[in-house]
This record gives sequence, structure tokens and C-alpha cells, in this order.
Amino acid sequence: MVKRIGILTSGGDSPGMNAAIRAVTRVGLNSGLEVFGIYNGYKGMVEGYIEPLTRETVGDIVNRGGTILGSARLPEFKDIEVRKKAIAQLKKRGIEAVVVIGGDGSYRGALSLTEMGINCIGLPGTIDNDITCTDYTIGFQTALETVVECVDKLRDTSNSHHRCSIVEVMGNRCGDLALWSGIACGAEIVVTSDTGFDEQDVLDRLRDIDIIKKKKHAIVVISEKITDVDQFAKKVSLNTGFSGRATVLGHIQRGGSPCPFDRLLASQMGEKAVDLLMQGIGGQCISIRDNKIISYPIEEALSMPQESRKPLMNLFDRLV
Amino acid sequence: MVKRIGILTSGGDSPGMNAAIRAVTRVGLNSGLEVFGIYNGYKGMVEGYIEPLTRETVGDIVNRGGTILGSARLPEFKDIEVRKKAIAQLKKRGIEAVVVIGGDGSYRGALSLTEMGINCIGLPGTIDNDITCTDYTIGFQTALETVVECVDKLRDTSNSHHRCSIVEVMGNRCGDLALWSGIACGAEIVVTSDTGFDEQDVLDRLRDIDIIKKKKHAIVVISEKITDVDQFAKKVSLNTGFSGRATVLGHIQRGGSPCPFDRLLASQMGEKAVDLLMQGIGGQCISIRDNKIISYPIEEALSMPQESRKPLMNLFDRLV
Amino acid sequence: MVKRIGILTSGGDSPGMNAAIRAVTRVGLNSGLEVFGIYNGYKGMVEGYIEPLTRETVGDIVNRGGTILGSARLPEFKDIEVRKKAIAQLKKRGIEAVVVIGGDGSYRGALSLTEMGINCIGLPGTIDNDITCTDYTIGFQTALETVVECVDKLRDTSNSHHRCSIVEVMGNRCGDLALWSGIACGAEIVVTSDTGFDEQDVLDRLRDIDIIKKKKHAIVVISEKITDVDQFAKKVSLNTGFSGRATVLGHIQRGGSPCPFDRLLASQMGEKAVDLLMQGIGGQCISIRDNKIISYPIEEALSMPQESRKPLMNLFDRLV
Amino acid sequence: MVKRIGILTSGGDSPGMNAAIRAVTRVGLNSGLEVFGIYNGYKGMVEGYIEPLTRETVGDIVNRGGTILGSARLPEFKDIEVRKKAIAQLKKRGIEAVVVIGGDGSYRGALSLTEMGINCIGLPGTIDNDITCTDYTIGFQTALETVVECVDKLRDTSNSHHRCSIVEVMGNRCGDLALWSGIACGAEIVVTSDTGFDEQDVLDRLRDIDIIKKKKHAIVVISEKITDVDQFAKKVSLNTGFSGRATVLGHIQRGGSPCPFDRLLASQMGEKAVDLLMQGIGGQCISIRDNKIISYPIEEALSMPQESRKPLMNLFDRLV
Repeated sequence: MVKRIGILTSGGDSPGMNAAIRAVTRVGLNSGLEVFGIYNGYKGMVEGYIEPLTRETVGDIVNRGGTILGSARLPEFKDIEVRKKAIAQLKKRGIEAVVVIGGDGSYRGALSLTEMGINCIGLPGTIDNDITCTDYTIGFQTALETVVECVDKLRDTSNSHHRCSIVEVMGNRCGDLALWSGIACGAEIVVTSDTGFDEQDVLDRLRDIDIIKKKKHAIVVISEKITDVDQFAKKVSLNTGFSGRATVLGHIQRGGSPCPFDRLLASQMGEKAVDLLMQGIGGQCISIRDNKIISYPIEEALSMPQESRKPLMNLFDRLV
Repeated sequence: MVKRIGILTSGGDSPGMNAAIRAVTRVGLNSGLEVFGIYNGYKGMVEGYIEPLTRETVGDIVNRGGTILGSARLPEFKDIEVRKKAIAQLKKRGIEAVVVIGGDGSYRGALSLTEMGINCIGLPGTIDNDITCTDYTIGFQTALETVVECVDKLRDTSNSHHRCSIVEVMGNRCGDLALWSGIACGAEIVVTSDTGFDEQDVLDRLRDIDIIKKKKHAIVVISEKITDVDQFAKKVSLNTGFSGRATVLGHIQRGGSPCPFDRLLASQMGEKAVDLLMQGIGGQCISIRDNKIISYPIEEALSMPQESRKPLMNLFDRLV
Repeated sequence: MVKRIGILTSGGDSPGMNAAIRAVTRVGLNSGLEVFGIYNGYKGMVEGYIEPLTRETVGDIVNRGGTILGSARLPEFKDIEVRKKAIAQLKKRGIEAVVVIGGDGSYRGALSLTEMGINCIGLPGTIDNDITCTDYTIGFQTALETVVECVDKLRDTSNSHHRCSIVEVMGNRCGDLALWSGIACGAEIVVTSDTGFDEQDVLDRLRDIDIIKKKKHAIVVISEKITDVDQFAKKVSLNTGFSGRATVLGHIQRGGSPCPFDRLLASQMGEKAVDLLMQGIGGQCISIRDNKIISYPIEEALSMPQESRKPLMNLFDRLV
Repeated sequence: MVKRIGILTSGGDSPGMNAAIRAVTRVGLNSGLEVFGIYNGYKGMVEGYIEPLTRETVGDIVNRGGTILGSARLPEFKDIEVRKKAIAQLKKRGIEAVVVIGGDGSYRGALSLTEMGINCIGLPGTIDNDITCTDYTIGFQTALETVVECVDKLRDTSNSHHRCSIVEVMGNRCGDLALWSGIACGAEIVVTSDTGFDEQDVLDRLRDIDIIKKKKHAIVVISEKITDVDQFAKKVSLNTGFSGRATVLGHIQRGGSPCPFDRLLASQMGEKAVDLLMQGIGGQCISIRDNKIISYPIEEALSMPQESRKPLMNLFDRLV
């Protein structure tokens, strides 16, 4: 049976990664394993930046944002020669299996390593909720809370000035942060890659909100990389009764103490990952699906279509 | 088809009730219904304290704690004569159906009214997560966040003083607030009605945590009505190396701006309730089960056993 | 003696304005005055958008961001004919004196009105802390908290990625938000209109922080309108070992529930304003100076030089 | 000139102590000193639990609650023989001067040490604001924010249930937490050691608030050790129209990330302490007075009377 496992975080960080590191470490140690931290993602694996983790190393981190293991991107990991070096580093330390916390790209690395003999399990760590096989990724709810807090603040001040706040949030391929926060904040309009962006239509609707609904303010939540929000804010000022102001929330969405939901999710997923590795299973990734912690083969997971967001979009429209 | 519906909040309030009121009102109005607010629960129904709700009445409340409709308990509502008065008040205003947000007791009232010809739909509004037919009640995640924030603060100060903090949280019949927050905060010990309370055993474990694990502090989370936590804190001081301090979180757990999870849940459940009423259905309650918004007959719901918390308790033990 | 007073908020809103409105109203009513809310600043004064305020109107607003009275800019108020219209509106309602909450520009309007026979008292409501006669403006501490919370979040994620976060905060003429938050967050570099911006020097210092101090991340806080932070972030990526990322905090700094410090400050200043008006005094503005609530003639106040920020800049340097 | 200084935290911890530790360490190191952390207050001094502090040791702590040095009470420190042992421990390491962060009791120890040849400077670290020579202690504003956040939550739920919340806050000798939070939250009644507690009078006023002012809820803030708040809540239920509920906030008031105000105050005070020690001065304590960082001889400081709170109490009465 497996004796030594490693853990790494890869790609953009997300709140709850530390809770997952803690869970993998504690559950591993309590199950008689030795657990190693691999620093700075696959980069540290290749360079051998690997240290043993103890109960104490992961003490008092469950409530901390970011990742104590650091993260880095390493596109060269696609190269088999690079991966061979990584595996040599693991073998030197007797590490037989690895938990990888990250996004799609990190899952691919985990799959390649598994195929080369190192069992890997993927955990969904990203604020974008853009991993289709899981209902929630670790960090999504916390990022959502950050967005909602910020929009609640913008509402205070928009309200006082007959203003239209245009808020750009993260998540391009997946509009969940925009759609969920739009519902949660009572935004007037949400624009995601699913809804598409018809500029003229949005301006028309804003005019209606001003003139017909007589609202004192309007909030538009929009996913990143859809339009230049500063330019769009100017058009709002020119073409509607509102004064338009753009806010790009940016990287603050990645930080912050994880909310309880993410701490629980990360802990449950970390536990499941260790259990799979102890059963000699690799090449799988952990999901929460229908409120249950399950796993899928990574290959299957990567090709799953996203569940439709239509019901939530309908809800949004019925709440306006 | 139904034309006029009412909505009331009943029992202890919970964060997210306002988001549910807003959703029922907006979805109702957007579906062509008239919507009436019934103030102070069943009491206001009997007394006829009922007012029309508009888009504006429910504007800017999605992020507010408490309930704009007020809440009150009315044990006499079990009496059929009292309910007849209530129904007369509804009929006078042409209100044919009602959404009831509250706990078990409120569901019973909703069922009785349905049997008397007023279709009612129940929504689970309580911070205790003690409604067995739903995975989450409206307000539970927000209350959990309040608990976790408070325990994170206690940890700061316990850490500095070699202290054992004993924290009493709400939820007697259902230990979820204690168990979830215990996992989320990295508590050392959790005591709920499920775990039972063996005082001597807890003291022994605290001694181990001090002497063997050499921890600088310990946190015990305990559900309300299990023991006198002030007395127990004194025993901790006398019988272990820690200085014991009790904190009873109390009613602050019921307040606060609802977290996005609760705002979404409340909105989705409110939408579902209106849709059922429009289909002429009553006597049902709304649940989130396996991440889907569904409904059960109230009678069936009230007799459902609680799902086992064993897996989470095991996880807690493996994380310590 | 004065019988009826008005109150308005003008210019950019700031957290705590509502607490000031409440204080002026309650203290006024409790002193036997009638109090009128003038909506949308001087614009509402000219248009006669003026309503009586009661105890209830200002209930439950002490903890709300924004201003219930709304705000707007009215450059035309410099025109004496416009001011005459405003005064006619006040006289029609018997309003003999007005409290004006806002910034420098609003003070000038207050002074002109006083000279025309309507006693006015100014209250410093702006997040920028750019009113030289007062140590603190209403809203500054709350805005500071918002900035600090955001930077604490950026630190989480910068730490995980060997990143340099460049954070643009409000306050161009006055660098207090940048300097204070830089100290409070342990930023590596602060750039304000006082420090000036020598791009090459900042890049050199960042290289030192990376190579010599071997820090895992760096935070640069910079006042608005000093440089294009997105461009600068690119230069950081090109010229230092850090990956540079810009964040423009924008209007979220104006919102949020006021912190207790601002609620107290606003309440004390509101009280003082009413007391002055009752003594028949106008043309003054309220300050907190050396921890005491005092007043200055507006003319004198507007020409006061800013106290030196040298001591705080030295402290910043000694803490790095 | 002094070469080596020590720093300790003593008595109850308060948010901002870590920011002070960081400031003393960084300013000391940047001035060419060596800085030592003395763990667990005077106890660690006697036992020789003393370690060097580096830039890194105090990195990333400015935003953390509690104290990384730990704290403990040691009544025996009044005994000169015990202090001699402490001094021997310091001399063994060449530590010539010490910064002591704590309350009145800690100041006395600092004065005794100074008289025995070790220059000590006191910093006011306590949430109670009960050190009469300073306008603010380190931690007071943060504790105030915790109280205000909790009361804002209680207001949500009190509002929904026609309830009177009785909130017990820390600070017996000094009622500032009660008085300030009472003003900041818009409480109906405040009870401190200054106001005294006339139970019958408070009940009468609550009846008025219910019957005459027709308020939906009432909040009473009361300092600790004045009455049994649970008993008093029962009397409120029996004797007024409100349902009374008591909440004892307890130790959560000591925790939490320090607010910017406290981080700044701690940093400025830490700087001043190091500067005094470098000038060969001891037996002084640091204060903020009239918005300036100054120092007093400890002896003089300990006998200073508290400034009158009458103006704030009057303000409270005028705001109700």
C-alpha cells in the first residue's frame, strides 16, 4: 500500500486551498501515511522543492486565504522529459502518489503523471467555478462573497448619485460569478458569455430602468473579457439618464479567508482524495455533485459539458 | 387560477427571509399575481394585519437580515376556531393561497390551512438546519459564518493565553451548527445531541491535548441545552492545564446580512413556491435536496428521519 | 431664535453621512427645532425638493452607507441668481439655517448662503481626508478599512504567486488613504502626491525587495491620477522578478456601513452644528482638531495649509 | 547607547499588540538595535523564555489578532526577589531595556524594573480603554467594531420580534465600550459604572419606549459586572411589552484582525517607545493625547483622573 504522498497547488490560487492542504495532511497522517508538500506547483516538483508536512505545519491555516505551498504555472510540464525529471524527484523521496489542487490544466498534468506510474488525484481549486464535472469548485463561494460585499458597497453610493455601476467580475468561460452575484445583489442586468453582449440592448434597458421604472441607480454585473467596461461606462453616461462608473474587481476576488462552505468542501474533498490514493486509485478528480462527494476519471471529467444555467437566468429575469 | 397570494414569516427569524419575501413578491408580480404581506406571522393573519406588497416595498431588502414582515409565535393557531378567523381575513381580501416561511411548527399551520381550503407552501426558514427534508435551510450558512467568525476571534485570544474556549452555539435537536463550525474552525472537540456529552471523557481529551499534543489552546464547540457551559468552563480550569472560558453566542447567530448562498437559496425557493401555487398546488414544502430545488408533501416531510451525520463526524475526527 | 433648519449632503458621498443626518435631525428635534431634509444637495434646494424629517425618517440609518438625502453637483450654484432661487425656496418654508455636509466646494456654497442671510454650518463629509482644517473627515476611517480589507486579500494571493500588487486608491490632492493604508497593511512602497513618483526608483526598489530582501510578494499603494497603473504593472513584470498586477479600487471605497469611529465623529459633529445654529452662528465649519470638536470660520478653514505628513512617511520608511 | 532591547505583552491581549511588536522590532532593527521577544509576559522574563526577533519573525502579523509573544499574568512579579531573577535573565543576554505592552498592572512592573536599572517603556494594550492618560488604548477601536457588528446583528432579529436585547460588553472600571457602542448603534439605553444602574428606572424607560414611542425593538448596552443580565432580561419580559433577551459578548471582543486605526496607533506608539529607549529614557508610558503621540512618567500616568464622559453621555441622550 501507498506510504508516502505529496500535495501541490497549481494555477491561480483560490480561498480554501489551505483548508484542502490541511485536510490531505491531517487525514493522511492520521491514516499512517507520510505527507510531503511540493512547493510552487509542478515547478517545485521538477526542481525538488519538496518538504515533509506535519500536524503543526498545517495548524492555524484552515482560515487563511492563498496557499502556503505557493503556486506557479509551468507550461513546459506538457513535455514528457520535464515530467520524467519530476517523477525522478518524487521517486528519490519515495513519494508514490500526489494530490493536485488546481484547475483544468492542472488536471491534465495529474493525468499524465498517473499514466507514467504516479497515481494522482485532482481537486477543483479555482474561484471561477469553471470545472464542469463539479457543482462547486473550492473558492467559488468565497469569491462570490467578496463580489457581493463589493457590490453591496457600490449600491450604497450609486443610490446616492443616480449612478449606474458597471462591475466586471472574474470568470470568462464560466459566467457563474456574474450570474450568482447578480441574483444575490439584486443587480439590474447581468452579462456573461452565455447571455452574450448586445451593447445597444443593454443601453436601451438602462434607459427603461431610469425613465419607466424610475430607479435611483442601476447595477450591471459583467464577466471579464467581454467588453471594455471603462468605455462602456462612458456610453452609459452619454446615452442614458444615469452617470456610468466602471469597477474592475480584479485580484481581490482570489483572496480572503475562505467562507465555511469552502472550508467544509475543501476538507471533504481532501479526505476523499486520500482515501482513493490509499485504495491505489489514481487518474481521478473529486467533485461535489448533487451534494455528494464523488470522483470521476479525469479524462471523462475534462470532456463533460457544463450544466445549463438557463434556470438561474430565468430566475434572474423574474426577480428584476 | 390563483390571483392573489399572501406571504408571512413565522417562528424564529433567520437571515435570508427577506430575500425569500422579495423573490415571492417579484416572481408573483412578474407572473401577474397580486401579492400581500401578512405581518407578524399567523398572529397578523388572524388580526388582519395584511398589506399589499409592491416591487418597491421589497427593493433593497435582499441583503438585509431579519424579516420586514415581522414574526411572532401563536400557539393558539392549533385551535380550528382561530384558523377560521384567519381564513375569514384572507377571504375578505381575496387571498387564495399563502407562502409560509418558518420551521416545523409553521409547516403544521400551513398544512392545516391547506386542508381548510387555502393552499399553502412552506419554505424552510431557520438557522438550525433542523428541517429533515432539506439539505439546507434558509439562514443556516449565514449563521454558520457568524459562528465561524466569532470562533476565529476566540482562537486569536485563546492562543495568546493557553486557554480553552467553550463555545455554545444554537441548534439543540440538530447539531449541524456545532459540527460544521467545528470542522470549519479546526475545533478540537465538538459536542452535539448526536455525539452525547461525557464530561469526564471531554476533560480527559483536553488534558491529552495540553500534555501530549502540547497545543497552546483548545476550542470546544457545543450545542445549546446540553450542559451549563459556565460551570463546565470552571471544571476545565480545575481539571486540565487550560484556563477554561465559556462563550454563549446567543441571538447574534440569527442576525446579519445573508450570505450569497442563502440569498440564492431563498430566491430559488421563493420562485418554486409561487410556481406551485400557480399550478393550484398546496400542502407542500420546498427543499433543496441533492442540489435541486424540489417539494414534498408537508405530511411526508414532517416525518422524514434526519440523514446521518456520521460521515461528517468521522471527517471531524480525522482532521483533529 | 431659529425655529426651522434644513440639512443637505453635497459632492461625493461618504460613509457616515447618514449618521450625521440622524444626529442633526434628532438633536434638532430634541432641542425643539423643526428639521427639513433637502434632497440632492444644492440642486434640491433650488428646485424645492425639501421634506420634513422626523425621528422615524432617520431611524435605522446610523449604520447605512450612502446618504438618504441623495447628492448631486451643481456648478451653477456659484451664480448668485441661482442662489437667490434657493433662498426663496427656503424662505417659503420658513427655513432659516442649513447644515451642509460635503467637501471644500460645498463649504463655499455654505459661505455664500450665509453671506446672503441664511446661516450655514459645514460638516466635512468626504473619504479623501482632504479638508485641511480637520484631522479627520467623516468617512475617511471607513474608506481606509475598505482599502485595508482589499489589500489584505491581495496579499493572500500575491504571496502565493511571487506577485507585485499595485493598488490604486482614492485621494489625489491628499495622499492619506494611500499612506495610512500603506502603513496599516505593511505595504512595501507608497506613492502619493507628497512623495512624488519616480518610476525608475520604484522599479529599482522592487528589484531589491525581490533579490536582496527575498520577499515572496510586494505591495505598492498609489494615489489616483498619478500614473496609469495598468501600464506600470506591465513595466514591473518586464523589469523586476515580480509579476505585476494592477488593481483600481474605485467606488467601492465610498460605500459600506460606516465604522464606529465615523458614526461617533458624525454624531458629535452633527450635534455641534445644531448648537451653533441655535446660537445664531453661521459661516463656520466643524472640525475635529487635537481630538476636540471645534469650529472655524469657513473662510479661514479654506485657506489653512495641510499639516505635514512627514512624521507618518518617516514611520512608513522605518517599518519596511 | 542601548544595543539590545526586549519586548513583551502582558495582561489580557488586545488586537493591535502584534502591530506594536512588529513596529518595535522593525524600527529597532532599522535603528541598529538587536530586538528580543520575551514570551508569556513577565513569566517568560523570569524563566528566560527569550528569543531574538528578526524582520521575518514579525512579517505578516500586522493584521493578526492576539499576540505572537503570548501573555500571562504573574502576580508574584511584585516580589523583588522574583524581579531580580528576571533582571538576571535579561543581563545574561545583554538586554538593557524593555518595551512592555499591557495595562495598568503591567505598567507597575515596568516602573519597578526601571527603578532597578532596566529602562522600560509602557504601551497601552487593552480593549477596555481604561488607561486614563491616553485618549485611546491599542485595541479599543477594534473591540468597539466587534461590539457594533454584533449589536447590528441583534438589531436585525430584535426588530423582527418586538424584542429588547440586553447586551453585556467588557469594561467595568471604564464604560467606554458601552457608551461608544451605544451611540454608534443607536441603542436606546446605556448603563455603565458612570451612569449607575437603577433597575426600576430602566424598566420604566423601556415601557415608555414600547408604549409611547411605539418602537418595535429596544437595545440596552450594559458594562460587565453591573448586574446579572439574564435575570434582568427576565424582568424586562415580565414588566414591559418587550420580550427580553440577554447576550454576553465575552471574549470575542478581545479577538479579530485589528482595524486600521489600531494598526496605525500601535505602529506610532511602538516607534515612540524605541526612540525613547534609544535616548536612554525609561519609566515612561506612551499615550495618544489630543491626537499627538506623547509620553508621561508612569507614576504620573497611574494617578491621572479619567477625563469626564459627560459630553458623550449628553450626546447619547440627545440622539435617542
